Amino acid sequence: MSELKNDLLLKALKGENVVRPPVWMMRQAGRYLPEYIKLREKYDFFTRIKTPELATEITLQPIQRLGVDAAIIFSDILVIPQAMGLQVLMEEGKGPLLPNVIQSQKNIDALITDNVEEKLNYVFKALSLTKQELNGSVPLIGFAGAPFTILCYMIEGKGSKTWDKAKQFCFTESNLAHQLLQKITDVTIVYLKEQVSAGADVVQVFDSWSGCLSPEDFKIFAQPYLIHIANALKNIAPVILFPKGSWYALKDLSENRVCALGLDWCISSKSARELTGNKITLQGNFDPAKLLLPVNEIKKAVKKMIDEFGVQNYIANLGHGITPDVPVENAKAFVDAVKEYNCEL
Amino acid sequence: MSELKNDLLLKALKGENVVRPPVWMMRQAGRYLPEYIKLREKYDFFTRIKTPELATEITLQPIQRLGVDAAIIFSDILVIPQAMGLQVLMEEGKGPLLPNVIQSQKNIDALITDNVEEKLNYVFKALSLTKQELNGSVPLIGFAGAPFTILCYMIEGKGSKTWDKAKQFCFTESNLAHQLLQKITDVTIVYLKEQVSAGADVVQVFDSWSGCLSPEDFKIFAQPYLIHIANALKNIAPVILFPKGSWYALKDLSENRVCALGLDWCISSKSARELTGNKITLQGNFDPAKLLLPVNEIKKAVKKMIDEFGVQNYIANLGHGITPDVPVENAKAFVDAVKEYNCEL
Repeated sequence: MSELKNDLLLKALKGENVVRPPVWMMRQAGRYLPEYIKLREKYDFFTRIKTPELATEITLQPIQRLGVDAAIIFSDILVIPQAMGLQVLMEEGKGPLLPNVIQSQKNIDALITDNVEEKLNYVFKALSLTKQELNGSVPLIGFAGAPFTILCYMIEGKGSKTWDKAKQFCFTESNLAHQLLQKITDVTIVYLKEQVSAGADVVQVFDSWSGCLSPEDFKIFAQPYLIHIANALKNIAPVILFPKGSWYALKDLSENRVCALGLDWCISSKSARELTGNKITLQGNFDPAKLLLPVNEIKKAVKKMIDEFGVQNYIANLGHGITPDVPVENAKAFVDAVKEYNCEL
Repeated sequence: MSELKNDLLLKALKGENVVRPPVWMMRQAGRYLPEYIKLREKYDFFTRIKTPELATEITLQPIQRLGVDAAIIFSDILVIPQAMGLQVLMEEGKGPLLPNVIQSQKNIDALITDNVEEKLNYVFKALSLTKQELNGSVPLIGFAGAPFTILCYMIEGKGSKTWDKAKQFCFTESNLAHQLLQKITDVTIVYLKEQVSAGADVVQVFDSWSGCLSPEDFKIFAQPYLIHIANALKNIAPVILFPKGSWYALKDLSENRVCALGLDWCISSKSARELTGNKITLQGNFDPAKLLLPVNEIKKAVKKMIDEFGVQNYIANLGHGITPDVPVENAKAFVDAVKEYNCEL
């Protein structure tokens, strides 16, 4: 395997000194890019994800276009429910739909937890091919959804503002919920380890909906599974946990030798550094809605963000995925502002 | 005006000693009540809101059924955009729809800010009639949406998970946004003062969507207007501000002589007491999804919540509105648990 030419991300994750923070963007391979839209017109969602050549091409698009410091494999967190035997429908422009939701012990027993490596082989192939194409230019990030977030979809079958049904299931069928969370965790660990074997240098775990839980319930239904995953990967690859909205968990998670934590924009850098005792690498947290500002204002805001987080132990990113309406030049301004940071000193 | 027989809520808001915390529930007059459903089948949304006899009947339903310590007038935060000249459509089971969104200076100039008293006369009539019917049994709460939350609907025209368009408007058309926020604020102050004149003992301001703002942007687009409203009402009635999701603002708001702050469930009582320096009355924050638990578990969880918040300077409530799927007996268990609290000591 070739040495990485740009190892800023890995250095930041190890807590090593860098001249400027690394930068990448959640959903950087996505709908704001015209070259992605073109592929979307030709191939449906699962074709794009399951054809390694297409997934690779999409993964590389923002590297070429924006010059980000990391690639993140083009895939989806719902490949896990699918590999576990649940049907997942994905209609363009609409959210995901899982027609057969989990309701009972029987449903949980019926979930498949073996042969995941084989079923998700297309992801590993895409990672290997991307790794090869990257040729050591930047690190490659693999990812998975966190167990609680995957449970949300498995219980509700589609997106929700409040995830009340998923939470009610956790509260009223706590035994079943933990069985389900454990199964997802076990599969996710195998999945992430295999991603690393296939070429991922780093993995991120997205707990996109954990913010709907109270601090107390996060500790019951989200945190143990996140830590279980982080521990299982500890000697294998750096893990970034992103429990969106769960600011209250930052202290606990930072004390559990987790490698790095992702932040949304609803917490100041000061609070985040305080809660994590300045001892962990933080990633985030530019409000994606600010990418609609004029380019010079984006650059000013990014500079301010780095001033506040500091250059070390920091990965510049958005606080959530980039939205489809962002002009490419604005996305580029975000990346450029980070890359220009040191020059301004 | 008759003396209040049950003044627990007013005492808690004044910081006076109480034997147990007062209790009410956001959306306590709503779809989980069979008697409400019956009225809904006969009268559409705006008929229910705009007919003082119906609004009064609905407001009183949970008082009779659950024995809560306060009534909150049955109305909607979108009566303000409507009174300001925007069409508001409300289809049963769907969210609100404002077909003519605010996009320009011209749209803002066209908003009506006078004669609000006259246009919202139906609310004041409902308050007076309810006050009369309550006959001093419990205090009556009036309410309004916070300026930022009303701006969200005026810009987007319907509900949203992320309010990206509203935020982008604030960020990119900051001058227009502040003009709009100021107009809403001015109208809201007149509206709330008139509610008090008509019989409201307390008013609550719902910033339901402020949690989509970063701490920095909350200080620009939400906080000044909330404080402006709180100050304008200061010598008139106790004000409860509920900036849902904006935990990061609790410290600042508590230092601005705001009367009381509402909390969602995504903050522990300990953090909330710490952030507000133990010097303000807090309201909340039971996760509504927990009302699906068995009655004895609801009671245990409520007891724990009061143990943690403390009896004084506290109003027991949910962290958000009660959902339609909650059995009435579970809602009653929530209320009963608070009322039984002192007896258990």
